[in-house]
Amino acid sequence: MSDALGMWVDGVEGNLVPADDRGLQYGDGLFETILVRDGNARFLDAHLARLERGLARLAIPFTAWRELRTDIARAVGRAPRLAILKIIVTRGSAETRGYAPPKTTRARRIMSLWPTSPVEHVHLEQGVQVNVTELRLAEAAPLAGLKHLNRLENVLAAAEGLRGNAFELLLLSTRDQLVSGVMSNLFLVKEGELHTPLMDRAGVAGVMRQIVLREAPLLGIAAREQELVLADLFAADAMFITNARIGVVPVRRVGEHVFGMSEIVKRLRATIEALDA
Amino acid sequence: MSDALGMWVDGVEGNLVPADDRGLQYGDGLFETILVRDGNARFLDAHLARLERGLARLAIPFTAWRELRTDIARAVGRAPRLAILKIIVTRGSAETRGYAPPKTTRARRIMSLWPTSPVEHVHLEQGVQVNVTELRLAEAAPLAGLKHLNRLENVLAAAEGLRGNAFELLLLSTRDQLVSGVMSNLFLVKEGELHTPLMDRAGVAGVMRQIVLREAPLLGIAAREQELVLADLFAADAMFITNARIGVVPVRRVGEHVFGMSEIVKRLRATIEALDA
Repeated sequence: MSDALGMWVDGVEGNLVPADDRGLQYGDGLFETILVRDGNARFLDAHLARLERGLARLAIPFTAWRELRTDIARAVGRAPRLAILKIIVTRGSAETRGYAPPKTTRARRIMSLWPTSPVEHVHLEQGVQVNVTELRLAEAAPLAGLKHLNRLENVLAAAEGLRGNAFELLLLSTRDQLVSGVMSNLFLVKEGELHTPLMDRAGVAGVMRQIVLREAPLLGIAAREQELVLADLFAADAMFITNARIGVVPVRRVGEHVFGMSEIVKRLRATIEALDA
Repeated sequence: MSDALGMWVDGVEGNLVPADDRGLQYGDGLFETILVRDGNARFLDAHLARLERGLARLAIPFTAWRELRTDIARAVGRAPRLAILKIIVTRGSAETRGYAPPKTTRARRIMSLWPTSPVEHVHLEQGVQVNVTELRLAEAAPLAGLKHLNRLENVLAAAEGLRGNAFELLLLSTRDQLVSGVMSNLFLVKEGELHTPLMDRAGVAGVMRQIVLREAPLLGIAAREQELVLADLFAADAMFITNARIGVVPVRRVGEHVFGMSEIVKRLRATIEALDA
């Protein structure tokens, strides 16, 4: 039995999807993971804007934005004080077999609401443990940055983590570039500035990453996207990870390497937590 | 409306899968595409052996082999003279959200039967047109060779083909290595020997490719897996593509480059078509 608080397919409450959906057949779709807090879907416009960009890149025709917002409002109305709303949009059912996208297709909306809990106080105060995975991420520009449904790399990487007790796992690319965590983006703090990996060859360009890149300069903190490797990480003063659920979370250790705690990370977290959106 | 001739989920006829299936959520599963000819699922043991290897690599526990064979026999009984049987095995439903594979999980079998038609005589006699895609495949050892459900690269590459009228599209990797077609494996014929790309960094190790590698030596034709680039293709005497549906099909042209027709390709095709399996 799933612990989902609700599931909806094309706006109808229910848990069943046609087996010919191209999301299942090929991972032909995208998703968003949205934090619902006190009846508010946080950063909803940013999530929907990213979804729209992703759909355009995959050339999935989607016009049901009004219906999607109605779906979301309905699910949010069902949410406890804190919950996760997961939205999947697939290219819809395949009429015929084969990879090529059908000429006519009707995208499908699949929504689920899940319980979640706040980040533990100790994690925010002391920072979290991050371990480096053995798996190396493929570098593939056509899909880089998208929150698409082809997530087997994340599944295999997360499986490595079941052996330890890290809060998050760090992913490097086949060229040994820093990419992200399995479920988060990462930022290094160096001499008062923020550095985060480019999302042009691998990884997911997270909404919370985007919020940090937007908010940091407003606090007078420069933030830059660039190529980074493990040596940059070891040379950094501090590190934090981000995603829609956890917000900004300081990293205490990567493997055996210990970071200091940074006032910058605390300020960023507090600022973003206090945003109305 | 799908043109499927039948669909079964865990052995029960029907078209509906729980939306929390990890095959849909993450592409966390594998598939097989089997040709059914005259009431016979061709090369079934090779397909099931590959499925078993893939499940082991993804650490998906699966024990329902007897049930799967029963499912297959039932579907084959429904098949016309020529059909495609597609088998998907996913890690099953997710009880909680998150990439990490649950400790307890029940793999799900999703089977569909599709109409198909024989390869056209003109294609076998004159060879087919193949065009090179703009998309470059990521190189990712952990998933290489597997017929997994993360197939967005194939979808995007196949979408390029909608603009032309090639029979198949050729995929190169980000390092410009030859990998495969979108839906097939490829072989070059050079001085009476066969060369086919390694499947250790990208691509799917097809069952028909494996049959060719097994049958060619029995005909006195050496066959070798190796790294290959476009220059090797242009230097080859002939080329052919393979998959479970089409068998062995000669290539006439790649882009503007024209190949000769090879007796070796004809012999291989005739031999494999005549196999009882």
